[in-house]
Amino acid sequence: ITSKLPHIGTTIFTKMSKLAQEHNAINLSQGFPNFEADSKLLEMQNQAVKNHRNQYAPLSGLPKLNQAVLDKANSLYGSNYAEDEICMTAGATQAIFTSLAASIHPGDEVIMLKPAYDCYEPAVALFGGKPIPIEMKAPTYEVDWNEVQDKVSSKTKMIMINSPHNPTGKVFSEADMQALIQIVKNTNILILSDEVYEHMTFDGRPHLSVAKYPELQSRSFLTASFGKTFHVTGWKLGYVLAPKLLMKEFKKVHQYNVFCVNHPMQVAISEYIADKNTYLNLPDFYQKKRDQFLSLIQNSRFEFTPSEGTYFQMASYKNISNEKDTDFTLRLIKEFGLAAIPVSVFNKDEKCRKMIRFCFAKTDATLEKAAEIINRI
Amino acid sequence: ITSKLPHIGTTIFTKMSKLAQEHNAINLSQGFPNFEADSKLLEMQNQAVKNHRNQYAPLSGLPKLNQAVLDKANSLYGSNYAEDEICMTAGATQAIFTSLAASIHPGDEVIMLKPAYDCYEPAVALFGGKPIPIEMKAPTYEVDWNEVQDKVSSKTKMIMINSPHNPTGKVFSEADMQALIQIVKNTNILILSDEVYEHMTFDGRPHLSVAKYPELQSRSFLTASFGKTFHVTGWKLGYVLAPKLLMKEFKKVHQYNVFCVNHPMQVAISEYIADKNTYLNLPDFYQKKRDQFLSLIQNSRFEFTPSEGTYFQMASYKNISNEKDTDFTLRLIKEFGLAAIPVSVFNKDEKCRKMIRFCFAKTDATLEKAAEIINRI
Ligand SMILES: CSCCC(=O)C(=O)O
Ligand SMILES: CSCCC(=O)C(=O)O
Repeated sequence: ITSKLPHIGTTIFTKMSKLAQEHNAINLSQGFPNFEADSKLLEMQNQAVKNHRNQYAPLSGLPKLNQAVLDKANSLYGSNYAEDEICMTAGATQAIFTSLAASIHPGDEVIMLKPAYDCYEPAVALFGGKPIPIEMKAPTYEVDWNEVQDKVSSKTKMIMINSPHNPTGKVFSEADMQALIQIVKNTNILILSDEVYEHMTFDGRPHLSVAKYPELQSRSFLTASFGKTFHVTGWKLGYVLAPKLLMKEFKKVHQYNVFCVNHPMQVAISEYIADKNTYLNLPDFYQKKRDQFLSLIQNSRFEFTPSEGTYFQMASYKNISNEKDTDFTLRLIKEFGLAAIPVSVFNKDEKCRKMIRFCFAKTDATLEKAAEIINRI
Repeated sequence: ITSKLPHIGTTIFTKMSKLAQEHNAINLSQGFPNFEADSKLLEMQNQAVKNHRNQYAPLSGLPKLNQAVLDKANSLYGSNYAEDEICMTAGATQAIFTSLAASIHPGDEVIMLKPAYDCYEPAVALFGGKPIPIEMKAPTYEVDWNEVQDKVSSKTKMIMINSPHNPTGKVFSEADMQALIQIVKNTNILILSDEVYEHMTFDGRPHLSVAKYPELQSRSFLTASFGKTFHVTGWKLGYVLAPKLLMKEFKKVHQYNVFCVNHPMQVAISEYIADKNTYLNLPDFYQKKRDQFLSLIQNSRFEFTPSEGTYFQMASYKNISNEKDTDFTLRLIKEFGLAAIPVSVFNKDEKCRKMIRFCFAKTDATLEKAAEIINRI
């Protein structure tokens, strides 16, 4: 067998969570909450299983859930998605993978902002596409849209964006969105907009979804995650919104990739999502966590710019060590019992910026224990 | 957007189940049970959700579940799969899709037996492979292994098999397996063995897994389904077994396709599967259903050869109508309120054999109502 992804190993998330377990470390690496989801949601899930909702769901998703999500997106973002412009997926990862499978032909160029979530580049490559990286500029991780414009060629099939951005916590501004619109209008360029952290923006920043801009909505795969939003990453449930023409191609692949997704979990979320507070309270909830975390470690030797969104906080260790970030994080686990993500794994070609990523979707007790370690490093 | 699957529409299963609902028809089309899974399993699922198992599972699956499945396969089939030769998937469909994604390069030829489950051909095509169809010979659906041998070329990358076979109910014999071994030994040809109906073989026939034959195990992706085995198709949980070298490539794609699969469902099955009776009683259970169904319709105008395995029964309507099977099944729904699958959808190029497929994984009451209709047609 000849490898189709010869340079790929195991994801950093698997490696880090495994090491964290082995060393009994405080785990601020992989992005998941270590507190429990709302017991109401869990109870709804239990009821769905008891109520005989254990056979195949429809291919595109449970109609009641689809309608709830369409209503939510259209009312929050002013979009006009129709019934046949949504499909439930086995997590946002599968939504991203299938969007790429459906649209990327060999030789297509895909512009992506680096650092980038680790699945983007290999998934594009698997379908014969050519990733075209654009560096976001430290320390504030601005996107230089002139550079994006310069990289657009006749082969550009897609631009991948991700706001709120993992790992940097960058949230796109209105100026970012307008710059993007200027670049794509009057072209056939598609957009894949990874919006899994849509409900985690801080300090009053709005989330600017592609769904807000007709010029973008009409050319975008918008991918999102119930796992992130409702604290159930292990349920592996997400979705994609896309205009009819794109959705038609998406479903052709989806039906042969997974056919449909978990039925009782869809029933539970379709009921739970009816209460808007389940997601409208999230920015506040996570802003408090970010603030608590930052105040606990303000006297440490790390340097921070407060995260604008997501449940991640980047930290520079340039005052602490000259090690590569992969070596530094390994030492943090072994010597200090603390797991974090080395940012270079999101950006294999960059010169190492001495940055690591902490996940603050953790209980107060965990954040306090982590801070106690961070202040000792 | 240029379609990557230009000739593909919506799967027959979606179409038929939708039509069945619209016409309030008895649904013997899509393959799922209309009775409930064991309440013990449902209770275990409920407990797993309550016991905080709602965050990401490990990439390859829950260790306890993986170990249970390895033990089961190795003891039932005498194989020697190791810990790193298994990966949990979002249903067997995702196991098949990912196996193909990991191994099929543009230009590779993939031999498959027709009729074939409807995802095989488009999934192979999506990765640039060339499906090489071999007709199974009606009425007993024997495979002519000489023809398979003749179709083997320097470009043959894989042979896809499926026993017990959907839709024909054919179960491979020892002679079939030996013929397959003769063809592949001393070659690099891979095998994808879809064994989702492994626990549904009738009249004392054993299931001959590729795991039983070292020459096959060492070159096979073996895909299987908890949904089919435990009557929970809506949980979307399956797995793949494969030798290290293949599994390594499988996981590279898997981690970017779905990363991991539903955590609480894995917990539940890891507990439930400990009791061997949960699957060892299945052949008997479904043989009774087949026998009941066949005896109820023995005086109908359809012609049957009893299914050897799976929960499907093929039926010839050549004494009833000269219509194409797609037209005939449409009329069955509309005029008679009965949904079945036209077999030509598993074999788009064949001349229509006037065969349809019934699913008998249904309650006694449903089978009786269906038979009452079938006897009137
Ligand atoms: C799918 S595991 C990774 C979770 C995540 O989004 C992250 O840690 O960046
Ligand atoms: C994934 S829906 C199809 C179920 C099935 O296996 C069949 O009906 O053949």
